[in-house]
Amino acid sequence: LLPHEEKWIRADSPEDMIAIIQRLAVRGAPLIGVAAALALGRYAATGRSVEEIEAAATALRNARPTAVNLMHAIDRLTRVLAKRGPKALLPEAEAIFQEDVALCEAMASRGAALIQDGDGIITACNTGGLATAGRGTALGAIRTACEQGKRIHVYVDETRPLLQGARLTAWELSKLGIPFTLICDNMAASLLRSGRVRAAFVGADRVAVNGDVANKIGTYGLAVLCKHHNVPFYVVAPRTTYDPKCRTGAEIPIEERAAGEVRGVQAFKEAKVWNPAFDVTPRELIRKIIFEDRDW
Amino acid sequence: LLPHEEKWIRADSPEDMIAIIQRLAVRGAPLIGVAAALALGRYAATGRSVEEIEAAATALRNARPTAVNLMHAIDRLTRVLAKRGPKALLPEAEAIFQEDVALCEAMASRGAALIQDGDGIITACNTGGLATAGRGTALGAIRTACEQGKRIHVYVDETRPLLQGARLTAWELSKLGIPFTLICDNMAASLLRSGRVRAAFVGADRVAVNGDVANKIGTYGLAVLCKHHNVPFYVVAPRTTYDPKCRTGAEIPIEERAAGEVRGVQAFKEAKVWNPAFDVTPRELIRKIIFEDRDW
Repeated sequence: LLPHEEKWIRADSPEDMIAIIQRLAVRGAPLIGVAAALALGRYAATGRSVEEIEAAATALRNARPTAVNLMHAIDRLTRVLAKRGPKALLPEAEAIFQEDVALCEAMASRGAALIQDGDGIITACNTGGLATAGRGTALGAIRTACEQGKRIHVYVDETRPLLQGARLTAWELSKLGIPFTLICDNMAASLLRSGRVRAAFVGADRVAVNGDVANKIGTYGLAVLCKHHNVPFYVVAPRTTYDPKCRTGAEIPIEERAAGEVRGVQAFKEAKVWNPAFDVTPRELIRKIIFEDRDW
Repeated sequence: LLPHEEKWIRADSPEDMIAIIQRLAVRGAPLIGVAAALALGRYAATGRSVEEIEAAATALRNARPTAVNLMHAIDRLTRVLAKRGPKALLPEAEAIFQEDVALCEAMASRGAALIQDGDGIITACNTGGLATAGRGTALGAIRTACEQGKRIHVYVDETRPLLQGARLTAWELSKLGIPFTLICDNMAASLLRSGRVRAAFVGADRVAVNGDVANKIGTYGLAVLCKHHNVPFYVVAPRTTYDPKCRTGAEIPIEERAAGEVRGVQAFKEAKVWNPAFDVTPRELIRKIIFEDRDW
């Protein structure tokens, strides 16, 4: 409903949370993991059997395929369930929430060090408070840089088809009082050529062992454009986004979503549509990946 | 109104036509020139003075700044007016119309020769019958290739902000029975990486003497992506799009349009917007420019 309406939604069951995640009312790789963990923790706290909790864990884990934070959070709770039983789950989920806040602070601080006074920064999708439990990943770094007194202008890719940039990032930046300009995704090339952008900062949904990064569709194209214009391309992500089981980006499953998201109300109704929700950016196009404890 | 409603509009005066062109009910570089010429020809045929016709010509010439076809068509009529008087204008405007039909046929034939059976072709904006008096430029070439029996699959960039791809090209391709898939502009990079696209075909709004090409916003970015993926990038344009007075793309004025086109109903309403309607693709990113009588 954002940016026009701000509404708080209760998730009273794992099924509620799965529906909320699938319709993207909760989105952003870190937040999906935190929200799923909290849903499972609350469910476990209501006197469910181990079998019921495990079934709910499996369902939550499969809610969306690309962001690995979800799998990591659920797997962590499943291990705790096996070792310490259902009662340990809610405190563990709350710990995951608090840790994500702290991860955001650490990433933001490291990312902000790469931002200079006067920079124009391009970003895509939404990577702020609406995507994490804390201040965000890429947008958290931009926010921290601004709080350090650096004057930044943010260029926001609208991020078709679901306009997370135009709806969510624009709303967050406005609330924070950070100056920004909204562009259509296909204007980024001209903007980069104009020299107004000094760096790109984006988030991630999964980081493979070789450094390939899955993120919102459009990220890969933006990285190619940045390379062509010699603009450094930074990915900001917490350790929960790193997947040690995934050797390269080719192994990351890319969610394909409904054609209606692209068609909207304006397109030709019978058009066949390809709607991948994510893409993979190869490591060689990324200047640095900024984790909470290291730059890679 | 397309693709949902097909409505024929009368332009009873130069003022009507200017409004029609500015709200993009007539768009496409060749068609803007043809339509403006016909409006001026009809106006001259109703017994106007040379001064009135010259004033109307100036107003029509300034309707939009980027596509040079408009200036060429009006300048041609102005020269005829000076030499042969008002009565000569309507036949000359009708000649411009007929010539554009023939230019399309010639370009389509040359362009189709570069398309192979089984090709995946990516295109942007709309360059077909809705953009010219004939079968179009880039889309005309695709159509002719299909009529030659080549099996083509067209990937259509939706072309934000005004969705000429999703609305107009999708509608035209569907009418022609040519298979196509609609994508968001920011999906083109992933599509190119997937190997499904063998070539890109786009139109042009102005070709400079050095071969730089102004075209719909997003063209430049697509050309960079094609270069990165080693996919040949072809521009199809008639001689009326070539501007001998324009040495390089840097001299081409780029129209900036209203913020509301980008914001639509979904974006954050107070967002500051940058909305260039065109961009410039440098010659080195273009494999060939296909004119009606030569490939360059």
